[in-house]
Amino acid sequence: MSTEQIPYKIYLSENEMPTSWYNVRADMKNKPAPLLNPGTGQPMGYEDLRPVFCDELIRQELDNDDREIPIPQEIRDFYKMYRPSPLVRAYCLEKKLQTPAKIYYKFEGNNTSGSHKLNSAIAQAYYAKQQGLKGVTTETGAGQWGTALSMACAYLGLDCKVYMVKVSYEQKPFRREVMRTYGASVTPSPSDTTAIGRKILAEHPGTTGSLGCAISEAVEVATSTPGYRYVLGSVLNQVLLHQSVIGLETKAALDKYGIVPDIIIGCAGGGSNLGGLISPFMGEKLRGERDYRIIAVEPASCPSFTRGRFAYDFCDTGMVCPLAKMYTLGSSFIPAPNHAGGLRYHGMSSILSQLYHDGYMEAVAVEQTKVFEAAELFARVEGILPAPESSHAIRAAIDEALKCRETGEEKTIVFGLTGTGYFDLVAYEKFNNGEMSDYIPTDAELEASFAKLPHVPGQE
Amino acid sequence: MSTEQIPYKIYLSENEMPTSWYNVRADMKNKPAPLLNPGTGQPMGYEDLRPVFCDELIRQELDNDDREIPIPQEIRDFYKMYRPSPLVRAYCLEKKLQTPAKIYYKFEGNNTSGSHKLNSAIAQAYYAKQQGLKGVTTETGAGQWGTALSMACAYLGLDCKVYMVKVSYEQKPFRREVMRTYGASVTPSPSDTTAIGRKILAEHPGTTGSLGCAISEAVEVATSTPGYRYVLGSVLNQVLLHQSVIGLETKAALDKYGIVPDIIIGCAGGGSNLGGLISPFMGEKLRGERDYRIIAVEPASCPSFTRGRFAYDFCDTGMVCPLAKMYTLGSSFIPAPNHAGGLRYHGMSSILSQLYHDGYMEAVAVEQTKVFEAAELFARVEGILPAPESSHAIRAAIDEALKCRETGEEKTIVFGLTGTGYFDLVAYEKFNNGEMSDYIPTDAELEASFAKLPHVPGQE
Repeated sequence: MSTEQIPYKIYLSENEMPTSWYNVRADMKNKPAPLLNPGTGQPMGYEDLRPVFCDELIRQELDNDDREIPIPQEIRDFYKMYRPSPLVRAYCLEKKLQTPAKIYYKFEGNNTSGSHKLNSAIAQAYYAKQQGLKGVTTETGAGQWGTALSMACAYLGLDCKVYMVKVSYEQKPFRREVMRTYGASVTPSPSDTTAIGRKILAEHPGTTGSLGCAISEAVEVATSTPGYRYVLGSVLNQVLLHQSVIGLETKAALDKYGIVPDIIIGCAGGGSNLGGLISPFMGEKLRGERDYRIIAVEPASCPSFTRGRFAYDFCDTGMVCPLAKMYTLGSSFIPAPNHAGGLRYHGMSSILSQLYHDGYMEAVAVEQTKVFEAAELFARVEGILPAPESSHAIRAAIDEALKCRETGEEKTIVFGLTGTGYFDLVAYEKFNNGEMSDYIPTDAELEASFAKLPHVPGQE
Repeated sequence: MSTEQIPYKIYLSENEMPTSWYNVRADMKNKPAPLLNPGTGQPMGYEDLRPVFCDELIRQELDNDDREIPIPQEIRDFYKMYRPSPLVRAYCLEKKLQTPAKIYYKFEGNNTSGSHKLNSAIAQAYYAKQQGLKGVTTETGAGQWGTALSMACAYLGLDCKVYMVKVSYEQKPFRREVMRTYGASVTPSPSDTTAIGRKILAEHPGTTGSLGCAISEAVEVATSTPGYRYVLGSVLNQVLLHQSVIGLETKAALDKYGIVPDIIIGCAGGGSNLGGLISPFMGEKLRGERDYRIIAVEPASCPSFTRGRFAYDFCDTGMVCPLAKMYTLGSSFIPAPNHAGGLRYHGMSSILSQLYHDGYMEAVAVEQTKVFEAAELFARVEGILPAPESSHAIRAAIDEALKCRETGEEKTIVFGLTGTGYFDLVAYEKFNNGEMSDYIPTDAELEASFAKLPHVPGQE
């Protein structure tokens, strides 16, 4: 089919939407390492995880074998409120870059949470509801996940308690108000509502909090409040499973027009978007059916893949969560405060970590100013103000397209545009005022953090 | 076609998008009254308007006869970046309300400007560019129009100077940063950059500005700077013409499924959305082909239709603009400062004013708290956080749907969801905190404002 016939936006019809999620673990020879009990160092099974997570979600977390997991009808109906999301042909960006490359992006920002996070939020809230729970707890940093979860809970009539990193709570009052409008309670973290919060406040008075600390508080509340469980918006296997809807739709839209991508690019924080976007393509690659270049893009200020260790580590600061094997900068690593671009988590999805370790994907780290330059260029020609997180993928996609301009190659590039930047204008303001910095952690800083990695039998 | 087959979102394909705008004036027996020169009281013709507006836009402004105006290809290409917009079947809202009514909304918020304003912004910027101009000036209140114009100008490489009402400039720094990211210059109004601004500042030191005042400044700069013209995001005939794309898409989507609405509802500030949404339906009504109930919804705090006068009035505070005949509260009327819901303009589109005067549409005024209650309900079940402006239409649609619950009538209701509330969280915060007020102007306040209406020959 000729290029001229490809519309600006490829929408699937509702009956072309996926009816099952795709579980990439089924096609992995080396499965992701199991979660370990931090006390005993033993793998955690279904019963061990029940105090923390919803039952069905634990099954999904532990399921390395089933290739397809049916999406319940109620979730599919919710998806129809904001999905299918468009696969956009970036004609204007191509023209601006004068590149022979063909650029597509899967745009997940056309919903009020402003990102792809809603795909897993509704699934997790649904299973909590099915289990007869009263509510769920979670943490949020930038606020996208908390917003998504509030929306899902409001829809299903579940209570939603969000622990929001204090610095974000104060700097992003609007995110807080969106969550409140959706009926969630939002508590700045660390808080005096939990034992771990009080401990952290006593040890670090005046701290502005961290994601790892907010996770500890949310987990404590979930495990100590009858009828509540903890839910998490990234990193976990179950989250990547739910987010496979992104990749499945992308592939269906490409297939509809006979388009085969050469390069697939996603930003990577905990891995929820990247893992979802690439999953069906990775499946083909794992099964030896087709090859793609798959590129993870991370901030140079928080470079888990490119400078981290592949090791068991804590998922949270309070060290109450299981240990996960992943590329990590160490749970004590904190990105520079002037890093505005999101993707601040110290670790990375175990699935993606294993795939990266096994050579199935590449990773690049990009600096903040260059990310915002790409964001501004993209906004001006494509008409969408991108989230800083998403702009990491834009940067890498532009760089690949510019290489094509040099070589003359007509490569097809697909990237994930995870969300919009409407609640990130403080960062844009810094950029507009020329006040951004590009601080990158030193080797010594990383070594100090690696030195605090937990000791796990069989791991050096 | 049965209800079961109607998807949650009806998207037109790109080749089903309108190729011409529809000019409702061609079907009006009583044409909207001409603009008058405030000095002479004489109708303003093409040459009179050239110092202020772009040439082609003046032709469109004065064209009461051509039913269809072709949309230039470059504008149609830009439209494809964010259009067609979805016509959404509000299944979840219907269920929540337990109404037999069928509710649809045309959602114009899925673009970075966050509203329908982009439809006219790109058209006006395009004609300015075609004329070889360097740039355009405008005013913005809440910031949706300014954002839309910045986006359009960035795309076409035009300079864009925005005068932003000072209170909004200070309270909505994020809107300002979006405009700056799109390369616009944003000046708080009143400012010392214009003669009228300096005059107003001298007379009212400490004023936080008004839309009428910002208009005066933007017009002054346009008329005194070579290569610039002034553009406006509502009220004008040309704007309603461009916004007809909303209604044309809506009608095409409904026709595709054989749906005939009973009631069409839109919020009304200056009339840009309402006029665009209803235009093809109004055309059928004017031509006697079909009847619809058409309802304009306005804030009780700024009730131009329901409590205003149908009279010639100034469009701006500085009285530098032409006089327009419209339903008006008087150009000296200022809505209560605690009114958070947008739609604060004192007047109304001349086209809509004439249609209302001739009995072709109804109008209702709704109070602020009830508007935000509707907004919250809608956000929770339909997953979109609506703009306060749009929420006026939601309120009226819900009220009509609840009447259907009483009577058992299965009416089909279509309303315009003009935009998202992501930059209106200060208002939502007030609502969440129970701090909203419902101040409504007294008759004495309105009489005082009416007393200052200009004296125009033949008008009492």
